[in-house]
Amino acid sequence: MINLPAEIIDGSKIADSIMNTLRDSFKEQQDKTGKQARLVLILIGKDEGASTYSRAKIRRGEKLGVRVDLIKPDESISEAELAVEIGQLASDPTVTGIMIENPVPKHLSFSKMTDLIPFYKDIDGTSSTNQGRIVNRQEFLVPATAAAVVRILSNYPELTKSILTIVNRTPVVGRPLSQMLLNRDYTISVCHSKTPDVVIYTRRSDVVISAVGKPNYFDDEMINPDCTFIDVGINYVDGKVTGDANYQSLVKWVKRITPVPGGVGPITATLIFENLLKAFNYQNLNSGKM
Amino acid sequence: MINLPAEIIDGSKIADSIMNTLRDSFKEQQDKTGKQARLVLILIGKDEGASTYSRAKIRRGEKLGVRVDLIKPDESISEAELAVEIGQLASDPTVTGIMIENPVPKHLSFSKMTDLIPFYKDIDGTSSTNQGRIVNRQEFLVPATAAAVVRILSNYPELTKSILTIVNRTPVVGRPLSQMLLNRDYTISVCHSKTPDVVIYTRRSDVVISAVGKPNYFDDEMINPDCTFIDVGINYVDGKVTGDANYQSLVKWVKRITPVPGGVGPITATLIFENLLKAFNYQNLNSGKM
Repeated sequence: MINLPAEIIDGSKIADSIMNTLRDSFKEQQDKTGKQARLVLILIGKDEGASTYSRAKIRRGEKLGVRVDLIKPDESISEAELAVEIGQLASDPTVTGIMIENPVPKHLSFSKMTDLIPFYKDIDGTSSTNQGRIVNRQEFLVPATAAAVVRILSNYPELTKSILTIVNRTPVVGRPLSQMLLNRDYTISVCHSKTPDVVIYTRRSDVVISAVGKPNYFDDEMINPDCTFIDVGINYVDGKVTGDANYQSLVKWVKRITPVPGGVGPITATLIFENLLKAFNYQNLNSGKM
Repeated sequence: MINLPAEIIDGSKIADSIMNTLRDSFKEQQDKTGKQARLVLILIGKDEGASTYSRAKIRRGEKLGVRVDLIKPDESISEAELAVEIGQLASDPTVTGIMIENPVPKHLSFSKMTDLIPFYKDIDGTSSTNQGRIVNRQEFLVPATAAAVVRILSNYPELTKSILTIVNRTPVVGRPLSQMLLNRDYTISVCHSKTPDVVIYTRRSDVVISAVGKPNYFDDEMINPDCTFIDVGINYVDGKVTGDANYQSLVKWVKRITPVPGGVGPITATLIFENLLKAFNYQNLNSGKM
């Protein structure tokens, strides 16, 4: 059997193209309204991934001509104190979007805190209302990681009819992604840490989306050679970022693969600003109502 | 091969047992608070299924000592007029729960109208907020049909580890069910009308949950003999109600099956009142906040 090397999906290139469109749209909308779009990130604690991700957004905000502020409350902040802070940002008309960086320290409930953000300022789309709008086919602000995967897949419309497995059931990736894919006529399977045998799903799938959080988890024994492998995993090995794939194995085996870094990540950080633009437009169109 | 006849899951019996518990709980809570739980059903149009379902709830309300009112606005009511009506019920402290019977006439958006009901009065749990609470693992009021399927499956805990397929992607059945099952550690696949080949999912599944809306859709060629077949379909054939199964074929073939009528239906109508009880308790515990 001849193994052609995989097509390596270039997430940075896709992200750059979205950035160009967004820069123009922000300029146009900000000029038209005379207002500045503003994203406030709330980073609590010392999680390495969360810090990196917030810095990526600050850099992208600069490129887009959009204000991004980083608030770093003390790690010991209580839910009541954080609620006051969120309440002030919610009612501040200069704040377009609010995002709590995930994960938060264990004494805080991420979903409870996110539900304090009004749905039209909930920039990562993880509040109950925005999640439920996806379920009810009324998508508005959607979790950016899920949106990034949808964006990649949209380049291969024939995959809509394929067998597809998501290996993740979190509210930031697997769950909204499953619902967004159903909205786009995909048939889906969702596996997770309690699935007895993930391989019986992944081996027959032509699309596998993995956010397992284990480096070298998927190799050519678990994946079929026609597979488009979307790697959402972010793992740190010897100070380097790596995905869930045994990349050296899969890149010689599968049909397409997203690298880590340079795959899903840059698109995700960019689509945060697509949400910000939607929120900005919504708030300016509906300013009389709020 | 020996075909043992299927275990026929008796939904009416399960429903009766839930009714007994609910009757006691309503009595206790209503006595304690000196208040009456009250459900308002809004039925618009002449859909046969919706009429039947509202009558079933009125009968069950009587048995539970709970007030159930049926409002039948004119079929031509506009979204704006309906919004006013819902707003009045939302702010009426004597109204514990509101439910818009599905389907509504085509000029009305079911999801838009349901989103006008406060989440704590949204008795079928189909508003964005309640759907999103399921996604975020904060289940409160949940769609009763999905809850009925979960209740049936909970009697067979070994099925948590099986291969399970839902054939439906609507916001009232397949979607909330997929999320509720993920919350309970099931691995799920969701098929629908755009799935190229449903059989490659159903034939290897040990649990199939069908809400296709086509009589005689599933027979022994499409289902494996170890299957627990949950039939959520409601079809009218020659004036009789029937499910999605070719029942005569499957009842001799599968391991377990729910009949139609007498399977999922009575449990669904009962679980509406489990939601009403939750809403009643929530409103009385939180009356200072509303």
